Amino acid sequence: MIILGLDPSLSCTGWGVIRSEGALLSHIANGQVKTDPKAPMAERLHQLHRAIADVIESHGPDRAACEEVFVNKNAQSTIKLAQARGAVIAACGGRSLAVNEHAARLVKKAVVGTGAAEKSQVQAMLKVLLPGASIAGADAADALAVAIADAHLG
Amino acid sequence: MIILGLDPSLSCTGWGVIRSEGALLSHIANGQVKTDPKAPMAERLHQLHRAIADVIESHGPDRAACEEVFVNKNAQSTIKLAQARGAVIAACGGRSLAVNEHAARLVKKAVVGTGAAEKSQVQAMLKVLLPGASIAGADAADALAVAIADAHLG
Repeated sequence: MIILGLDPSLSCTGWGVIRSEGALLSHIANGQVKTDPKAPMAERLHQLHRAIADVIESHGPDRAACEEVFVNKNAQSTIKLAQARGAVIAACGGRSLAVNEHAARLVKKAVVGTGAAEKSQVQAMLKVLLPGASIAGADAADALAVAIADAHLG
Repeated sequence: MIILGLDPSLSCTGWGVIRSEGALLSHIANGQVKTDPKAPMAERLHQLHRAIADVIESHGPDRAACEEVFVNKNAQSTIKLAQARGAVIAACGGRSLAVNEHAARLVKKAVVGTGAAEKSQVQAMLKVLLPGASIAGADAADALAVAIADAHLG
């Protein structure tokens, strides 16, 4: 089973692909898609859509997962985030991939063992669970964490 | 100048294409894209993306427009709406179309002459401004109104 984890955002969308065989996990690839803040919104959303479609084309995941959306107090931030999610999730639909959603708390619990884990603990556990993986950045790390959680939570 | 107006929503996205030559407007086409509420989110967002990409392919608009996003008190509704917008706007970016955003009040003002116009007044003015157009429904009407406003507001 190949799982694509996604951490969508307008400025930088993280992605991570893992293989899950029974209790065994292994790293396949990860990366981050950055968009130009000066580019028009339509162009930025297209870049996210295109890049994630390419990742799916390259790695052929069986399913995908992301965190449940985080509702920010700032309505405009929430909208930007949700628009980025829409572009990214549409790319999954275009390849007939279902996208599971998991609460942030459950992702942390699945990776570290506690839903109250710090980001640094999640990143430390990634090194243990996916030895040798070179991780592109914090957003790619979050995406790999979601993929690992999805392997457990299904 | 050919203008594509969009009224994105997850369940039913309206679209309308008009030609604007100086002060002269004419109707080209309009329609609505309905998605199956029982289908997975990724599939529904892909349907919206695909359908709007097809509209752009068919009618070759020079630019696109939609209303500024409406922030609902219900956070989940706002997120669903913004995700649908993301999928639709990404389709415009994929065809190098900029998407202008106009406040709902300015759209009504441009079409009816007052920002406080009722929906029924907007629809009555559409019949005057685009004579002979057969309008697919309320969402297609909203999309045509945005296109007309964009012709005025640029």
